[in-house]
Amino acid sequence: MNSVGVVVEYNPFHNGHAFHLASAKEVAGADVAIAVMSGNFLQRGEPALVSKWTRTEMALKAGVDIVFELPYAFAVQQADTFARGAVSILDAAGCTSLCFGSESGNIDDFLHTLVFLQEHKPRYQERLKLHLTNGNSYPKASSLAFLDLSPNRELVDLSMPNNILGYQYVKAAKELKSKMELYTITRKNAGYHDKYFTSESIASATSIRKALFSDNGSVNSIKDYMPQTTFDGLLKYKDTYGNFHRWENYWPFLKFRLLQTAPDELKMIYEMEEGLENRFLSAANQSDSFEEFMNRVKTKRYTWTRLQRACAHILTNTTKDEMYTNQEEASYLRLLGMTEKGREYLSQNKNSLGLPLLSRTAGNSFPQLLQDIRASRIYALGLKDKGQKDLLKMEFTQPPIMLKTSELK
Amino acid sequence: MNSVGVVVEYNPFHNGHAFHLASAKEVAGADVAIAVMSGNFLQRGEPALVSKWTRTEMALKAGVDIVFELPYAFAVQQADTFARGAVSILDAAGCTSLCFGSESGNIDDFLHTLVFLQEHKPRYQERLKLHLTNGNSYPKASSLAFLDLSPNRELVDLSMPNNILGYQYVKAAKELKSKMELYTITRKNAGYHDKYFTSESIASATSIRKALFSDNGSVNSIKDYMPQTTFDGLLKYKDTYGNFHRWENYWPFLKFRLLQTAPDELKMIYEMEEGLENRFLSAANQSDSFEEFMNRVKTKRYTWTRLQRACAHILTNTTKDEMYTNQEEASYLRLLGMTEKGREYLSQNKNSLGLPLLSRTAGNSFPQLLQDIRASRIYALGLKDKGQKDLLKMEFTQPPIMLKTSELK
Repeated sequence: MNSVGVVVEYNPFHNGHAFHLASAKEVAGADVAIAVMSGNFLQRGEPALVSKWTRTEMALKAGVDIVFELPYAFAVQQADTFARGAVSILDAAGCTSLCFGSESGNIDDFLHTLVFLQEHKPRYQERLKLHLTNGNSYPKASSLAFLDLSPNRELVDLSMPNNILGYQYVKAAKELKSKMELYTITRKNAGYHDKYFTSESIASATSIRKALFSDNGSVNSIKDYMPQTTFDGLLKYKDTYGNFHRWENYWPFLKFRLLQTAPDELKMIYEMEEGLENRFLSAANQSDSFEEFMNRVKTKRYTWTRLQRACAHILTNTTKDEMYTNQEEASYLRLLGMTEKGREYLSQNKNSLGLPLLSRTAGNSFPQLLQDIRASRIYALGLKDKGQKDLLKMEFTQPPIMLKTSELK
Repeated sequence: MNSVGVVVEYNPFHNGHAFHLASAKEVAGADVAIAVMSGNFLQRGEPALVSKWTRTEMALKAGVDIVFELPYAFAVQQADTFARGAVSILDAAGCTSLCFGSESGNIDDFLHTLVFLQEHKPRYQERLKLHLTNGNSYPKASSLAFLDLSPNRELVDLSMPNNILGYQYVKAAKELKSKMELYTITRKNAGYHDKYFTSESIASATSIRKALFSDNGSVNSIKDYMPQTTFDGLLKYKDTYGNFHRWENYWPFLKFRLLQTAPDELKMIYEMEEGLENRFLSAANQSDSFEEFMNRVKTKRYTWTRLQRACAHILTNTTKDEMYTNQEEASYLRLLGMTEKGREYLSQNKNSLGLPLLSRTAGNSFPQLLQDIRASRIYALGLKDKGQKDLLKMEFTQPPIMLKTSELK
């Protein structure tokens, strides 16, 4: 069976994802689609809108055949570590190809860029250092350093967010000596037309979340931008648990933790750079909301995303020591869900998987898994009463979600 | 000026306290009464019902002339450390006498008991060890060991809670070679009559708190058991801030902290004995309230009080390392409030105080004070919005409360 791997957050699954998924299967000639999906917390350092179980169900109903969890150790990271973890999991899952969305849309340009940057590495590093010294954030400095090298037009524009991620996927695949065939598809956005979707049906996950959390935001306003199954899943989650997950739900806990923590202890947290700790502590004392807090700690040197990840690490008590070990390499394939076709794939390939397949947490003590269990417990605190109880329990009792073919449209 | 020292929590100040205060001044022939009062968290490991500022005001209005804060390092401790800290502060404040309430009511019996126990120390230690090995809690084992020594009736019954504390005050005073004259007064309870109070007017602080927190508990039900000024203070606190402080307000934070903490990290917390950490972590996962949690962790070996103190230390992030240093000796006299007479006393005695006098936190970096500031921040989280803001700010901006003579009845 041909399989195509995709790296996703699905926060939530929407029509743009559906387009990418269908195109990925088509260009790769794949029978099954395998997604490696971030769990509770995402690359931007945010809690996922709804639980990984609900997002898995949405993914399966929308055409994904197997969902593996991208461990926290890779999910809440800058692009290179995120990509390395995700690509290594898809490689271990035996994917015959990997397909990602990008602004570029041309895989050869990514490969040329990789070679080009390797050839110009010393000059690139020198420029990067200069731009960092001038107080730029890391992504900004990288982008400026790249421009300084005056690449010609055949190279990928590495100031675009999806190109940056794509570049890291390609780099990771080459470093892993992966046999996966690489594909990229031009990312759809609201201005783009194609035979399946009109501009009226594509919106970014960011704008969907924004609509969901706006003061007069009704779930109905987002209905046109996602499959009916996603929409139903969101409605059900809110009906059952009362709310979606957002940073503000966790703000009292972050504030508490900052108020009880000494600067030296805070320094042990991953991504808490020297000097940030006092800034964080003093802002916590003065702020009444997460947004207010973030606006107080924000500086030119650090992106919002970077600081938000540091907050996620404080919330989940993720130390440098723990992360330096856990981010080295993936230890397992944690199965969150599958279709019947996905199950058939796993059954055929079970002896050639590159990592142990986990379908439950009990009895397993991989440090990455313990870190994910802890993240799940903290994530559960974003719900009240029943929701909190359900999520706390699910981490130990929920078997992989199994979607029967009859349940697919 | 003759001064009498009292060790108090005033949680809240009630008629029994008023009786003890008046009697203490009378038996000691004192012009001023000096109280050393626990701040945010109390010996039983509970948050104080209302802030230390409100409790200070209540104390001043009820006849205390000076209130010093008993630092967290002594306040949330077993009897010996609690007593040592409190007595050393009263001694440093230059008190000419110390007066405590006890079931015994006879100071000579305390002095005899001290000598007796010192003479029989090896045998006492041996019996104590035996009773601890048999799974008794420390207070229970101490009491059984004491009974095993078959003391005669002239000694104090050390199975009674106020006798235990009194014994520790006497022991601390002797160890400090304090010149304070020691007095004890029989503790009033609801069954006792005297010329000032009838049984109808005395209730324990415990029963008062119970009434305040009962489902249909109205503040009015406790009116007869406390001075009008205390009653007004409680009413005002609730009107202004919406609620009193109780463990349940802090439960979400305790739960969060337990869910994010690994057993090895939890072991670093003061009073987290070997083996308790996994019990705490598993109970946190399963419990929806502090009471449920406590009932899950409770064992015969540890008293409720002992476990509740461990919870307070987790909440305030108080480590063994920090406490072992901070509990050694008092570093300062932190002035929370005074009457005009109290101010006169301090002015007369300012050059003979045994410790530096602090009237504000700013610019001071005593480790004990930093610990108290942290405890105040955490304590503030027991209120919502305005209350939380006010309390967070007060630790840095509130000068000692000054009560004018004209404000006294």
